[in-house]
Amino acid sequence: MRIPAYVATSATGPLVPGTIERREIGPKDVLIDIAWAGVCHSDIHTVHGDWGPVPYPLTVGHEIAGTVARTGAEVTRFHAGERVGVGTMVDSCRTCANCRDGLEQYCLNGNTQTYASVDRDGTITQGGYSTRIVVDEDFVLHLPEQIPFEKAAPLLCAGITTYSPLRHWGAGPGKRVAIVGLGGLGHMGVQLAHAMGAEVTVLSRTLAKRDDGLRLGADHYCATSDPATFNELAGSLDLIVNTVSAPLDVDAYLSLLSRDGSLVNVGAPSQPMGLHVQSLLGARRSYAGSATGSIAETQEMLDFCAEHGVAPEVEIIPIEQVNEAWRRVLASDVRFRFVIDMSTLSR
Amino acid sequence: MRIPAYVATSATGPLVPGTIERREIGPKDVLIDIAWAGVCHSDIHTVHGDWGPVPYPLTVGHEIAGTVARTGAEVTRFHAGERVGVGTMVDSCRTCANCRDGLEQYCLNGNTQTYASVDRDGTITQGGYSTRIVVDEDFVLHLPEQIPFEKAAPLLCAGITTYSPLRHWGAGPGKRVAIVGLGGLGHMGVQLAHAMGAEVTVLSRTLAKRDDGLRLGADHYCATSDPATFNELAGSLDLIVNTVSAPLDVDAYLSLLSRDGSLVNVGAPSQPMGLHVQSLLGARRSYAGSATGSIAETQEMLDFCAEHGVAPEVEIIPIEQVNEAWRRVLASDVRFRFVIDMSTLSR
Repeated sequence: MRIPAYVATSATGPLVPGTIERREIGPKDVLIDIAWAGVCHSDIHTVHGDWGPVPYPLTVGHEIAGTVARTGAEVTRFHAGERVGVGTMVDSCRTCANCRDGLEQYCLNGNTQTYASVDRDGTITQGGYSTRIVVDEDFVLHLPEQIPFEKAAPLLCAGITTYSPLRHWGAGPGKRVAIVGLGGLGHMGVQLAHAMGAEVTVLSRTLAKRDDGLRLGADHYCATSDPATFNELAGSLDLIVNTVSAPLDVDAYLSLLSRDGSLVNVGAPSQPMGLHVQSLLGARRSYAGSATGSIAETQEMLDFCAEHGVAPEVEIIPIEQVNEAWRRVLASDVRFRFVIDMSTLSR
Repeated sequence: MRIPAYVATSATGPLVPGTIERREIGPKDVLIDIAWAGVCHSDIHTVHGDWGPVPYPLTVGHEIAGTVARTGAEVTRFHAGERVGVGTMVDSCRTCANCRDGLEQYCLNGNTQTYASVDRDGTITQGGYSTRIVVDEDFVLHLPEQIPFEKAAPLLCAGITTYSPLRHWGAGPGKRVAIVGLGGLGHMGVQLAHAMGAEVTVLSRTLAKRDDGLRLGADHYCATSDPATFNELAGSLDLIVNTVSAPLDVDAYLSLLSRDGSLVNVGAPSQPMGLHVQSLLGARRSYAGSATGSIAETQEMLDFCAEHGVAPEVEIIPIEQVNEAWRRVLASDVRFRFVIDMSTLSR
């Protein structure tokens, strides 16, 4: 079936209205009417070719909230009219050790990303800047009613990408957690770490967003452009989640960790990062990385957000403003996530 | 009291016979007649100034096995005639969070190293290439009788430096552990990981020491100079303990780890190491460092070695051969640890 979408046809041109092909609903598939699509920096990186060759024409978007339109004959967990979400993955091999462990984000055969991946039928997956999507029910999430519909979309990437490392590395009462960067991911990380009970510090280049950070639940807000920050916080943190993809001074951030602390990157600069092993040795510190979360953990995160009243702060735009929104994302001029009202794309 | 010792008087000259000053026995001190002193690469790095300025004249040696000669009035845990050991530390602040946690190797005020540290009385500590040493009983280890006396000394550094990360990162049955380098540390790491029940792989530049590695308990032995090794072992290891201080291709070694695996350095090259964050992200891997073990863990390691019949393979030398031994250590020409018979230094 042909579906209206906004489409990238090159690395440099604007996204333009067009159509994409979706497969017919299989027995295990869910057809979703897309209501909201979050704008993730990854969408832009992908289209710009920052992460490798791109199969143009391409429709991006992996923060998808919508309503079930129809379900395949064997679908048991969803029904028409239900609010659902789709994140960064729509399939995985299901047979490798990591899939069997329920951690399909680390699928050893490479999971099927929501866009720009080769799907099991050989077509290229197309993302959420479109009116409808067909997804295997195993990769569809239930959206709790307590989460405002338009705010649910960014949880599917920005939410789970910060939730997963916070949980894995034990954020909670008595833990001192820092979030580097207060963008789309960072502003979720602050709220989630706070809701988990941790003492939360924001490490941002300047104090420009200090009031936002404290309002979102941070206990402390420090400017990394001020060298005094690194003296004052030396050895004081248990976990640092770095949401900034640009290179940073790894040794300086490691020096902020106490014994057995971890610095965890959720974004990845393409350049190599340098560090001195002494920064690790002297306090048994770790430098680690985390790539989003599993489907089960994403559901857990959504339920956690519903229970704790955690949600992103969003700026709603019609689809025709998406190119301008991308420019503003690149200029870090968004508090904190653009969400596209997909009803503005004619069906 | 003046004590015979071998002394470094510069970064470049040979060690020469001389004397050093030891403090009188305080109420909590143990006076030890040194029987055996292991030769650690750190001794050489320190004297050569590789790790910073050196307070010459200096006597090194931090793998010490001896017999208690006398104890201070308040010493309760040791008695004259008992076999004891001293490792890399002889004191710590005892009040910081890490000391209170029983991890004085990470003392936040800097523990007192066995040599080249400023002791609490303001003097410079002097190491084990000498006939006697005075140490606070809290930093003295009991040497189990099952461990051959001359083989106990290297356990105090090479043993605990590999034992601690193996324990901390969970080496044991069902775990696939690799040891990088089959030198003094590596040959202990292989035996210890094997005794803990792990499946052990040696990663060495060539296959030259393969028979040794298998004899010591390795299940597999792979040459890192062969690119096929990195293909064959990709994603197959849970833990890699890197005993080599020279820089290595961190991305290549990280690629050998399975999900949640850790690469742990116990040696530290002075140059920064580069890695791509993608090497961490894609499988939630960690790059970490570990600096020796605590006193309590050192005792645990000694008892473990006694129970499991683990001991270093040593080459005994008289003290007058120490300069030649250092040359051979620098040429990696030792299987696997030189131990100085300190009875050859006239008292």
